[in-house]
Amino acid sequence: MKKEAFHLPEDTIYLDGNSLGPLPKTASERLSKTIYNEWGEMLIKGWNEAGWMDQPRKLGDKLGLLLGCAQGSIVLGDTLSIKVYQALAAALNMSANRKVVLSDSGNFPTDLYMADGLLKTLDKGHELRVVAPEDVISNITDEIAVLMLTQVDYRTGRMHDMNQLTQAAHDVGTVVIWDLAHSAGAVPVNMAQSNAEFAVGCTYKYLNGGPGAPAFIYSRPDIADLIEPALSGWLGHEAPFAFDRDYRPAKGNERMRVGTPPIIQLAVLEAALDIWDDVSIEDIRTKSIELSELFIKEVEERCLQLKLASPRNPSTRGSQVSFTFEHGYAVMQALINEGVIGDFRAPNIIRFGFAPLYNDADDVLGAANILENIMTNKIWDQPKFKKRAAVT
Amino acid sequence: MKKEAFHLPEDTIYLDGNSLGPLPKTASERLSKTIYNEWGEMLIKGWNEAGWMDQPRKLGDKLGLLLGCAQGSIVLGDTLSIKVYQALAAALNMSANRKVVLSDSGNFPTDLYMADGLLKTLDKGHELRVVAPEDVISNITDEIAVLMLTQVDYRTGRMHDMNQLTQAAHDVGTVVIWDLAHSAGAVPVNMAQSNAEFAVGCTYKYLNGGPGAPAFIYSRPDIADLIEPALSGWLGHEAPFAFDRDYRPAKGNERMRVGTPPIIQLAVLEAALDIWDDVSIEDIRTKSIELSELFIKEVEERCLQLKLASPRNPSTRGSQVSFTFEHGYAVMQALINEGVIGDFRAPNIIRFGFAPLYNDADDVLGAANILENIMTNKIWDQPKFKKRAAVT
Repeated sequence: MKKEAFHLPEDTIYLDGNSLGPLPKTASERLSKTIYNEWGEMLIKGWNEAGWMDQPRKLGDKLGLLLGCAQGSIVLGDTLSIKVYQALAAALNMSANRKVVLSDSGNFPTDLYMADGLLKTLDKGHELRVVAPEDVISNITDEIAVLMLTQVDYRTGRMHDMNQLTQAAHDVGTVVIWDLAHSAGAVPVNMAQSNAEFAVGCTYKYLNGGPGAPAFIYSRPDIADLIEPALSGWLGHEAPFAFDRDYRPAKGNERMRVGTPPIIQLAVLEAALDIWDDVSIEDIRTKSIELSELFIKEVEERCLQLKLASPRNPSTRGSQVSFTFEHGYAVMQALINEGVIGDFRAPNIIRFGFAPLYNDADDVLGAANILENIMTNKIWDQPKFKKRAAVT
Repeated sequence: MKKEAFHLPEDTIYLDGNSLGPLPKTASERLSKTIYNEWGEMLIKGWNEAGWMDQPRKLGDKLGLLLGCAQGSIVLGDTLSIKVYQALAAALNMSANRKVVLSDSGNFPTDLYMADGLLKTLDKGHELRVVAPEDVISNITDEIAVLMLTQVDYRTGRMHDMNQLTQAAHDVGTVVIWDLAHSAGAVPVNMAQSNAEFAVGCTYKYLNGGPGAPAFIYSRPDIADLIEPALSGWLGHEAPFAFDRDYRPAKGNERMRVGTPPIIQLAVLEAALDIWDDVSIEDIRTKSIELSELFIKEVEERCLQLKLASPRNPSTRGSQVSFTFEHGYAVMQALINEGVIGDFRAPNIIRFGFAPLYNDADDVLGAANILENIMTNKIWDQPKFKKRAAVT
C-alpha cells in the first residue's frame, strides 16, 4: 500500500516487520534537518525553537490517532520495559489491598521480568500469576489487582479480545494494562473504547521507528491526574525548569515522561509516523488478513511437516503467522540465506510478519515458494544452518 | 584543541556545552552508515551483523577509558533519571538495615525526584536527607545507607572531592553513588581509584552525544555480580533470546541494561566518543582551568554587578563558571541575542561552560567583551529579554 515509502533491500522478501520495520525513505531528510538545522545550528536552543521538548507528546498525539487515544493521553519515551514498570507501579497503587498480578505465558518475557523486579522491590507479598492464554478469562477474580497482558502473542500471533477481557476485569474491580507491541500499526486498537486504564508498546515493529525507537505509554484521561509516578523524573514534573526541590507531577499523562527525550530517535520516528497520515488501519487489517490467509493456505498445501502455531481464525490472530517445526531454527537460517527474512523464536517456532504497508501477495507467494523448496529438498539440513548465532 | 572536529554555527560563541555539546562533524557519516548500510540493508540482521546488540557495552568500554572504569563495568542506555533509580535501588539493597539516603542541595533535581519516587515505592520508612554541599562531610554517619551526590554542581560548578567523600562514607559502611553528568569529559575521573560502588551520568554535555543521547551506569566490578536489578529487563538477562520465564541477571554490570538499546542515538554517540581517542583528559582539565580563570578575571574586572557564584579555587570547580545577578535571565537572553550562548538557571544564575575541545581564549575574551557591553549599557533592560520562555 505504501511500498514506495520504504527502502527495502534488493532480492529480499521482508517478513520480519514484527521485529524491526524497514527504513522509511523520508527518515534521512528528517534526520538531516534534526542534525544540521536543529542540533548543529540551534544547539541548546533546539529544545525550544525546534520544539524538541514537545516531541514526546506531539508524536504521542500522532500515534494516538492510530490507537484510539484521546489527545494528550499518550507520550513517547524510554523503552517498553521501563513503560511496563511505570504502568504496573501505577496500577498497583490503584488497588493497594489486592496482591495478585495476572498475566499469561504468551506475554513477552521482559514484561514478566519487569513485573518480577517491581514486585520484589515492593516486597509486599505480591504474586505474579502466569496462566495459559486461554485460561486468563477464568482467572479474573476479585483477588486480582492488575491484569497485564500483551494483546498479540509474539510467538503465535494469538490475539486477545481486548474489550472482553477489560470488561471482565473491570467487573471485578481489576485494573488493566495492555502491551500493544505487536498491535500498534498492525490491527485496529481503540483504547478509549476498551476503557482499559493503561497501555504500553514499542514503535520499532509495525510502526517502523527504527532500531531502539522509543516506547509509548497511555493512561486513561480520567485517572491520569491521580497517578503518583514511581519513576518521578524531571520531565514529568509540572515545571521541570523551575528546578524546585519538591516533585510535583505534570498534568495528566505527561507525568509519565521521565528523563531527557531521545531527540534523534524521535526524529526518525516522526518520519515513520507521517507515512500513516493517509492510511486507514482498517484497510491495513483487511489486507493483513488476506496476506496471512494466503500464506497459511500456500504453506499448508506445500509443506506438510510444518504445523500452524497461529490461530486459524483470523479474528483471533494478529498480523503474523507462525509454524512449528523441530528444526525451525535451521529452516529460518535457510530462508534468510535465500532472501526471505522472518525470524525464529525458541524453542521451535518460525514466524512471519505481514505488514501491508510494504508487503504484498508477491511477497507471500515468493516466500511460500522458497519455503517449499527448503522443506522438500531438506535444504535446511546443513551444518551451516544448524549452528546458532549468539543472538537470533 | 579539536575545534575542527565540530560543526559550530557562525558568529556564535558557544559556552553551553555543559547543557548540550555541539555536533561532531563525523556524526553524519556515522549516522548514514547506521541508517542505510545497517538498518536499510541488514534490517533485523543488524542486531548481529552490525553489532548493535553490543553497542551499549562497547561504547561503555570506550567511555570507561575516560572515567577510569575497568572494561565491562559500564554500559550505556536509558536516561540519567532511570540510571539513578537503578543505582539507588541496588545501593539500598546493599544496606537494608539503614534508612537514610544522604544527598545535597547541589544535586540535580531529577536525581532527588527519582530518589523520592523510589523511596515512596519502597514504602519502608526511608528518608532522603538533603543538606548543603558543604555540610555533606559532617553528615556522613553510620546512619547513612547511601551517599548520592552529583560531583559538579549544575548551578555553581562547585566540585566535590570524590575520593575524600567516598572514603569518609566507606569508613562508616555507607554505599556511594556519584552522578558524573557535569564531570564526564570535563574533569579527570577515576572510578576505580575512588572505590565508589556506583556512578551514573549522561553523554550529551561535555561528551557531545547529541540531544537525548543515552546515559551510562557503572558498578564496581567486585559488587556487580551481587546486584539484583530492580529494573530487570530482558537485555540485562543472561540469555535474552532464550525467552525463559525466569529472570536470571547477566554477568556483572551488563545486568544494568534494561530494554532495547537506542541504536541511532548510540551511532551518533560513537562518533562523538571517537573524538577523544587522542585527547588527554588531563590536558583538557589544564586548558579548562586556564579558560575559566581568564573568564573570571575578565568579567570581574569589567562587570562589577555580577557576583561570582562558582568557587574561586579552580581545584574545587568543574568546567563552568557561574555568576549571580538579579536580572540574570534577561542578561542571558541579551547575550544569546548577540551570539554568546550560555544558560540561565533559576533563580538568578547565569552560567558558562568551558569545553576546551572546541572553546579557546578568543571565545572567552569575545564573551567577556559582549557581556561587558550588555552590563555597562544595560542592554538587558528591555522587555523582550525579560519575558520568560516556557522552557529555558
